[in-house]
Amino acid sequence: MQLINFDHISANPILPEVQEAMIDTMKNNFGNASSQHQLGDKASRAIDAARESVARLVNCGDPKRIIFTSGGTESVNHAIKGMALANMDKGKHLVTTNIEHKAVINSLRFLKKMGFNITSVPVDSRGRVDPKNIEKAIRDDTILVSAMHSNNEIGTIQPIEEIAKITKEKGVLFFCDAVDSVGVVPMDVETLGVDAMAFASNPFYGPTGAGGLYIKPGLKIMPLIDGGAQENNRRAGAENVMGIVGMGVAADLALKHMDERVNHLRSLREKMIQDLPGSIDEYIINGDPNSCLPNLVSISLKYIEGESVVLMLDDDNIAASTRSACASGSLRASHVLLSTGLEFADAQGTLVITFGIDNTEKDVEQFLAVLKNAVTVLRGMSPLYQKEKTAP
Amino acid sequence: MQLINFDHISANPILPEVQEAMIDTMKNNFGNASSQHQLGDKASRAIDAARESVARLVNCGDPKRIIFTSGGTESVNHAIKGMALANMDKGKHLVTTNIEHKAVINSLRFLKKMGFNITSVPVDSRGRVDPKNIEKAIRDDTILVSAMHSNNEIGTIQPIEEIAKITKEKGVLFFCDAVDSVGVVPMDVETLGVDAMAFASNPFYGPTGAGGLYIKPGLKIMPLIDGGAQENNRRAGAENVMGIVGMGVAADLALKHMDERVNHLRSLREKMIQDLPGSIDEYIINGDPNSCLPNLVSISLKYIEGESVVLMLDDDNIAASTRSACASGSLRASHVLLSTGLEFADAQGTLVITFGIDNTEKDVEQFLAVLKNAVTVLRGMSPLYQKEKTAP
Repeated sequence: MQLINFDHISANPILPEVQEAMIDTMKNNFGNASSQHQLGDKASRAIDAARESVARLVNCGDPKRIIFTSGGTESVNHAIKGMALANMDKGKHLVTTNIEHKAVINSLRFLKKMGFNITSVPVDSRGRVDPKNIEKAIRDDTILVSAMHSNNEIGTIQPIEEIAKITKEKGVLFFCDAVDSVGVVPMDVETLGVDAMAFASNPFYGPTGAGGLYIKPGLKIMPLIDGGAQENNRRAGAENVMGIVGMGVAADLALKHMDERVNHLRSLREKMIQDLPGSIDEYIINGDPNSCLPNLVSISLKYIEGESVVLMLDDDNIAASTRSACASGSLRASHVLLSTGLEFADAQGTLVITFGIDNTEKDVEQFLAVLKNAVTVLRGMSPLYQKEKTAP
Repeated sequence: MQLINFDHISANPILPEVQEAMIDTMKNNFGNASSQHQLGDKASRAIDAARESVARLVNCGDPKRIIFTSGGTESVNHAIKGMALANMDKGKHLVTTNIEHKAVINSLRFLKKMGFNITSVPVDSRGRVDPKNIEKAIRDDTILVSAMHSNNEIGTIQPIEEIAKITKEKGVLFFCDAVDSVGVVPMDVETLGVDAMAFASNPFYGPTGAGGLYIKPGLKIMPLIDGGAQENNRRAGAENVMGIVGMGVAADLALKHMDERVNHLRSLREKMIQDLPGSIDEYIINGDPNSCLPNLVSISLKYIEGESVVLMLDDDNIAASTRSACASGSLRASHVLLSTGLEFADAQGTLVITFGIDNTEKDVEQFLAVLKNAVTVLRGMSPLYQKEKTAP
């Protein structure tokens, strides 16, 4: 059986058209964009074109508002640390939510060591933050709110526009981590009204090692990586031209095929949710069915460990995840799931399925057959399950 | 005429073997190394192999001492900011030299804003720092010395081992920016005795967008990019597997061909210096002839501007530079050349030639013919030159 990749959020394959553009760049455009000769000019033009493509994808008026980085994590670090440190004369209080990505959490933790205070706002059982709670958390010394666009473990999409209205009213900056949304769902950064927004290339089938940061004109932000004058003095270091070119082509394709991709992914998601009861019982679907990513299903399987399911699926050539790859290696239960009020044991039994444009309905069917078997085997070995089922 | 690339320090082409490995990775190994299934295992193994190759190149005992970054500039920022911020309880004074790369200078400038004090030590006319001056600059509250291995504009190699002995004696940390040395000249990080060392992949014909940082065991250093547990909790973000694999293959080739490369580059350098008087007069060769990179010649041409020479060379399909690409766009004279005591006008008339392994003796001859013409034309238009020559 060929591998079924149901872990696209960890890594997407690079599209053939993107590969082609990257290979061409690797072979024929290796110059340094800062060089004052023809090799530099050629590299510089390729970067400009990619910047225009990415600007179109997030619908920001001027490509100059986009800077290229080495990926989503760098973009998040740059935005949070750069905005906080550049505006600390106005206050040292930051507001965030309980279900942010580790890149956000640990960037904030760094700032805590630098003397900042942080208020983290809870979410409801669907993982949704109430903008009113953000409003309540804002104090006189608050300078920045950080909230993600979509959650990478449960798929919930947050009310970013409403939060942006509040931060604007309160005169507080707003950063949005949109790494798992940009290129996956339609995005209009001007309508959202955020001051900065982080994203990466791989979620829309571009290369890992390339990411971007939208910066609103006039925003005070310090660079994370200091040095030369690259990226309009905002991100130093010789540009990864190959990665940037790949990101640009991937952005063009994402924009062109957005509707058909979203429809395809959503139909797979709906099929899986509809067919699940025919294969297994005693599970919970996490997240907000009314506001979610089209490509993600988070399933908490009672009485068993998600880790064991992932290993059994892998034996049957199906790639899946217990949560974001970034958080793997940690033995603790997901802070996202616990924040939605899930029991510790159920959080540990969670499987995150993320579809890609190459997946088919048949993949879903094969997965369900394998999952059914895995769940049966694992529950058969589970003392917890036996106890529950033999209880009077 | 085919392009003659004499600006290899700005950008090296990627070697065919490196390209092949990267293309294979792009097509067949797109997984996230943190994933707990076969796609993750495969990516993880590729990164491990590259880490071993890079560890061999710098001769550090244990590959775990190497972390991968997005390039030399990130590595420098990570080391300087990470070491300073992690050790600031011991003091807030830093020592550096007057001819560091912008990545170092601007990382230190960031720390100055955070309340650190910096002492910058002068260099002699050959661009060499006297270790005794480093010793004198170290105070009770000094925590870190930062000095580059080789200078990217004049090629001078610094007495790093002697400086390391002093910092060790004084109980001060020592960071070495070796971006233009690693993979270009033989390197043994253990013998050097530094606490951290930054390098990049492109100087040894690997891809831009991949770099590394050597970290001595036990060193206290904060991450620059916070988030997941990648790179042994030291550098978060999904790994650029393709770039890392390319860096590994390039490291293998650099180590294998080190001697022949150095000999070839040195012979081109010697030929150029020997043949220059036959083509032009009134120039200065910058740097230290006794301790220098084999691939770099810095020539200050009297009475003319380096920028104009670069443009004229470009018209004749020769790529050269006035200084590092990272500093281009700035109209100011090079801080490196001024630090060696060069006159402002001579600094402005400087041409930096950097050879690559693909250059030939014929390239040098063609370059000298074109240069002779360019210098004649430009001096013919130079009021300064006319005045000097018609003076009684």
